[in-house]
Amino acid sequence: MSLAEDFARVSRFGAGEGGAVDRQAATAADGDQRRWLCERLAGAGARIVVDPIGNIFGLFTWTDGADWVMCGSHLDSQPNGGRYDGAYGVVAALNAAEELDARVRSGNLTPVRNLVVVDWTNEEGARFQPSVMGSSVHCGFLALEDALGSTDASGVTLRQALSGIGFLGNEEFTGTAVRYAEIHVEQGDRMEREELDVAAVSANWAAGKYDIRITGEQGHTGSTPMVQRRDALVGLARIVAAIDDFARHHDEQFHASATDVVTFPHSPNVVTSVAAAHIELRSAELGTVLRAEEWFEEMLSTVADAYGLEIEVVQRSARGSRAFWPEGIELTRSVAQSLGFTVGELCTIAGHDAVIVARTMPTVLIFVPSCGGHAHSPREYTLPSDLEKGLVTLTGVLAELTAGY
Amino acid sequence: MSLAEDFARVSRFGAGEGGAVDRQAATAADGDQRRWLCERLAGAGARIVVDPIGNIFGLFTWTDGADWVMCGSHLDSQPNGGRYDGAYGVVAALNAAEELDARVRSGNLTPVRNLVVVDWTNEEGARFQPSVMGSSVHCGFLALEDALGSTDASGVTLRQALSGIGFLGNEEFTGTAVRYAEIHVEQGDRMEREELDVAAVSANWAAGKYDIRITGEQGHTGSTPMVQRRDALVGLARIVAAIDDFARHHDEQFHASATDVVTFPHSPNVVTSVAAAHIELRSAELGTVLRAEEWFEEMLSTVADAYGLEIEVVQRSARGSRAFWPEGIELTRSVAQSLGFTVGELCTIAGHDAVIVARTMPTVLIFVPSCGGHAHSPREYTLPSDLEKGLVTLTGVLAELTAGY
Repeated sequence: MSLAEDFARVSRFGAGEGGAVDRQAATAADGDQRRWLCERLAGAGARIVVDPIGNIFGLFTWTDGADWVMCGSHLDSQPNGGRYDGAYGVVAALNAAEELDARVRSGNLTPVRNLVVVDWTNEEGARFQPSVMGSSVHCGFLALEDALGSTDASGVTLRQALSGIGFLGNEEFTGTAVRYAEIHVEQGDRMEREELDVAAVSANWAAGKYDIRITGEQGHTGSTPMVQRRDALVGLARIVAAIDDFARHHDEQFHASATDVVTFPHSPNVVTSVAAAHIELRSAELGTVLRAEEWFEEMLSTVADAYGLEIEVVQRSARGSRAFWPEGIELTRSVAQSLGFTVGELCTIAGHDAVIVARTMPTVLIFVPSCGGHAHSPREYTLPSDLEKGLVTLTGVLAELTAGY
Repeated sequence: MSLAEDFARVSRFGAGEGGAVDRQAATAADGDQRRWLCERLAGAGARIVVDPIGNIFGLFTWTDGADWVMCGSHLDSQPNGGRYDGAYGVVAALNAAEELDARVRSGNLTPVRNLVVVDWTNEEGARFQPSVMGSSVHCGFLALEDALGSTDASGVTLRQALSGIGFLGNEEFTGTAVRYAEIHVEQGDRMEREELDVAAVSANWAAGKYDIRITGEQGHTGSTPMVQRRDALVGLARIVAAIDDFARHHDEQFHASATDVVTFPHSPNVVTSVAAAHIELRSAELGTVLRAEEWFEEMLSTVADAYGLEIEVVQRSARGSRAFWPEGIELTRSVAQSLGFTVGELCTIAGHDAVIVARTMPTVLIFVPSCGGHAHSPREYTLPSDLEKGLVTLTGVLAELTAGY
């Protein structure tokens, strides 16, 4: 097998039109790709462990009792998502591990640490919230029961969904992991503009994520006088426009969004009584997010007062900005340069499992370019040559990390 | 039976919490209430005709070959709707017809016209569009095949839904109807404020109804630079806010709304690529609606250009303002005054089956008060004494109309 063959195989799970994949966490398509991964890992000689949140670990044990280097990403996708996000990282980890295992078996590599490939459950947070769920449970930042109790839009719990696809595990990965590495597509266009082959991630942006629920009152869209209306959709519109204005008038180091709108009732002639949405505020600096949060809460109460609405806000997650392991950045640079690749540094704006794991151990996060910066879209694309350059960089990094770096 | 008993019975079909009913067109609850109505009409001596769009006619034939007076409204409701809207008019028509039939049989009334009670299919236009569907098909303003081909949010056609509840009829009402009367709750608070018992509707507002569909592009809510986003939800927010501003800064003779929002995809971390909504522009004057429509289309293209979106608009219906039959208004006044009731005149802002039928024959539309003006809401309420006053007024009006007025 090769990276290209494995990636082509994974791209068929949940495939839709125009390059799209839809294999959200714990769906049937996710079950299919998980079974494929387990067979592929077992075929490569790894022992499989599935933990109670469904994380899949493929263990390459070279020295009994030695510490572990962990490498992985996630196979789950967004709805109508792209093929590269997460899947590339899992397939690259698998291929890098296979290559290193062959070197160990042929006596060309003498590692002091073992290697474990991991597929984290529900990184995307699309069907079930919160995102980066499997890595957060593994690292002890999210209670297992809370995660398993998360429900999708149809009321199905993650516990039921994982059980349904046969991935509600009952083992734990009990090795001592001391290093983590992940490779991912950039999801922005900076590497393309700067003509970088690979990049070492130096820090992650801070983010605040919130659910809002606006309650107004049903009424007739014809006969109700305008001044008597308590229209939850009008409230939502004012909020979404205000957030967009706020972000556009900020500098480039601040992003914000409103998504995932649900309204009630659905009729052309009835004033909307309930509107819910998900709000995100992100910045390179935590202080900027916190100041935006103050503005946001004040803006919500202004809208509530102006339109006679009740607005509830629940903060779903808060993430500080954080620098990555400096020696890991240096390692990525030196490996990439020794391979003749152009290499740079950048921040990750998006969250990744590596952002979670980095809080518990030295972590390397490597990016490869995304053509046009398209992400969470069927238009995601990375050149095959860039995927290969990323793989050999990751393999070199893992060789060093398993050697004790 | 009595008006109060019949109304209490109908209020149990599709009953929910807090006085709500949900018996949208051609649902199981609608099937149940239709069967009840047919039994109740047949028990009162009427012959039942169900036409191909599912309109139910209950024929009281007093003179073979005579012209007909038609009286009715609709039993279908909005989602989480109120008990009075439509149902009161059907139940009042039934009770008025029963009373007049008793007078005819006892020799106290000698009509020159027959009387037919009607339950029009899908007045609300909630589950299936357009609204006032059954009366529009009956009057020849909407093609039967177009109406039956209308689909709900799950893709079920009205033909399938009517067939499923056993009300895809194969007869036609072939009598010559020469007068139409309907009684309805006001759905506004003017009668309450002016202490009117009943009101004659003198005209209906003009209305333009539109479907918009905004197409942007999926992207990552984190990493996509703000200026590169083509967020369909931001476009929708700008449009909804602009329409609300436009209507609030207009005089009281203009109402506008956006409702029934559908977005894609549903994920906290994906920029919305598609947002659809229903827009209504209403005014007492058609010219005002047409000027608002020009403004609306210009505003849509400004939003499309500013945010890199494509916006499609389809006009779903256009209704001119129209005066009601002057002699009918006079008749309502004189009947109400002879009964000792306070009576006034007002326009209807909402559409009704009577607005459609009025284009084909002299039509009387009578209102009774709505407490607090609540409409399309579980909070709809009309005092039992007002319901009774409306019934005796309607009975008096029908006595005159069947006598040849």
